[in-house]
Amino acid sequence: MKIALDAMGGDYAPQAAIRGAKEALESYPGVRLIIVGKTDVLDPLLAENGLKGHERVELVHAEETVLMSDTSTVAIKSKKDSSITVAATLVKEGRAGAVVSAGHTGAAVAATTVKMRLLDGVDRPAIAAIMPSEKGPFVLIDAGANIDSKPINLIQFAVMGDVYAQTALGMKNPRVGLLSIGEEDIKGNGLTKEVFKKLSEMPINFIGNVEGKVIFQRYADVVVCDGFVGNVLLKSSESLAKATMHWIKEAFSRNTYRIAGALLAKEAFKELKEIGDYEGYGGAPLLGVDGVCIIGHGSSSPKAFKNAIRVADESVKVKLNSRICEKLVESGALPGSFKPNQG
Amino acid sequence: MKIALDAMGGDYAPQAAIRGAKEALESYPGVRLIIVGKTDVLDPLLAENGLKGHERVELVHAEETVLMSDTSTVAIKSKKDSSITVAATLVKEGRAGAVVSAGHTGAAVAATTVKMRLLDGVDRPAIAAIMPSEKGPFVLIDAGANIDSKPINLIQFAVMGDVYAQTALGMKNPRVGLLSIGEEDIKGNGLTKEVFKKLSEMPINFIGNVEGKVIFQRYADVVVCDGFVGNVLLKSSESLAKATMHWIKEAFSRNTYRIAGALLAKEAFKELKEIGDYEGYGGAPLLGVDGVCIIGHGSSSPKAFKNAIRVADESVKVKLNSRICEKLVESGALPGSFKPNQG
Repeated sequence: MKIALDAMGGDYAPQAAIRGAKEALESYPGVRLIIVGKTDVLDPLLAENGLKGHERVELVHAEETVLMSDTSTVAIKSKKDSSITVAATLVKEGRAGAVVSAGHTGAAVAATTVKMRLLDGVDRPAIAAIMPSEKGPFVLIDAGANIDSKPINLIQFAVMGDVYAQTALGMKNPRVGLLSIGEEDIKGNGLTKEVFKKLSEMPINFIGNVEGKVIFQRYADVVVCDGFVGNVLLKSSESLAKATMHWIKEAFSRNTYRIAGALLAKEAFKELKEIGDYEGYGGAPLLGVDGVCIIGHGSSSPKAFKNAIRVADESVKVKLNSRICEKLVESGALPGSFKPNQG
Repeated sequence: MKIALDAMGGDYAPQAAIRGAKEALESYPGVRLIIVGKTDVLDPLLAENGLKGHERVELVHAEETVLMSDTSTVAIKSKKDSSITVAATLVKEGRAGAVVSAGHTGAAVAATTVKMRLLDGVDRPAIAAIMPSEKGPFVLIDAGANIDSKPINLIQFAVMGDVYAQTALGMKNPRVGLLSIGEEDIKGNGLTKEVFKKLSEMPINFIGNVEGKVIFQRYADVVVCDGFVGNVLLKSSESLAKATMHWIKEAFSRNTYRIAGALLAKEAFKELKEIGDYEGYGGAPLLGVDGVCIIGHGSSSPKAFKNAIRVADESVKVKLNSRICEKLVESGALPGSFKPNQG
């Protein structure tokens, strides 16, 4: 099965995408790629990287590129021949099994939703990001696919996150928490209060509200929230990690003792840097679409692209989607079975 | 002017509150306190700490205590004689100039709103938290007083945050940003899109949307958001800082070289710990109420209480409220002057 790579998406595209493709082809002998984008731009880059005429590489032309300043709607409606739409169409037509993009998240969500369609019963897809904690990784869902989510969306995110934690992180019976601003069921906003009761009745290990203050101590293995809050949480954590490395650098260069100490312990700094390294995770799956879509970090480096391709390849193999469909039915988390305010 | 201290609020109250009161009285000779709570509990604690009969201490009885599991509404309606309500009433009656509480945030917001009332034209109050960044402190408003805010609320938070950054942090012309999930005006949720245009037209230094990914690099000096998102951001940052100290400890104790390095640079660790130290900030003001209300951290230690009392004392002196009222009028940020969707 081939992977369609949106070569035009991301802050350092197309260079980083092509170099990442090269690294992936070298590291994973089973991977086959369809590289999507402007051929006149990509052709020389492929040649430069020794990928021109590569037996596991195909190049498909897309005339347009979605800009970060485009709205998702404009991106889909007026740029019908954009790299992300063409890549999603390849999956729709069965020519590829997965799409990887580090471009405009909203456009990737819209293009895959329109072209690949959603899984039976799924109302909206969600990004499942893997985050580090004191006790190992946890899943944050939704990390930014949706804004202004409805209760049925958060309920389905909980189910998809539960299945993903079991499949991707090998967790048995993951603890699912609802991100809120107080532990009790009566604390939260209109959305979380409505969702709380329904989650309590579902066949998942729902542990109630989880507050920001314990999130990185992994009080919950799956943290469910609206994509606006999830995106702020994901991105601000990266920002704080970056600031922390800055503070560490400053603190350890203040005088000779500290500089000497830093030299002795230099491997410790490397270790710290790797904890928050999004490049290693590669990308986050957009769960709920009928197919595999991996959303890369906007600042994806070649290494990040390489790992996003690996994640896409693995995701195709694990059959996550059929398990999501089964669990949605089992949980009574289909739109028809949930009436707001009636439990 | 006296400060009313809610001695029953906070995870370590009343012990931490009373010990903090003692430290504040010792450090700030101008401070006078009214300690509010159950007298049979507080009397022996005051005696223990040498505060019984102290010339700058008064004890006022409050029969009830708001529990963290109470809703804000229940707390106010059925516990009319709670320590936070009694403390707010002391300000209303002019017997105190400020109230300090580390208890139930929602109850403190409700009690001060009902008893002290809001400033003319203010629709809802907001918590202004001071956060660290690579380039020094910034203001996060609202850090958790409100959920499900309306556009007029965020617009007023921007004005109050602007005035607070000038007054408390000495910033001239602070850059005010709207927390969102994309830089462009068309990115965000229903709430932020509506607020964006109005902020652009106001006499503040509005720099547009600010994304989570640059928040701790201090792209904006004042970050405006709904209290649900703000609370998640504030608390999850604390959680991440805690996890980071855990990771640092682990990384630096892995082998003899690293342990030796850590010993040489031990002052650097102290410095790092102080950056995220909420105890030093003491508390965050609840802006928009007619009087001074300082909200302490739920886990307030004696040191945090001491500093919250200091912040309350300073806040009374700077006449922040009259400047907020002026700026709200000047900005056209009064409820009557803002019609949703009409600019």
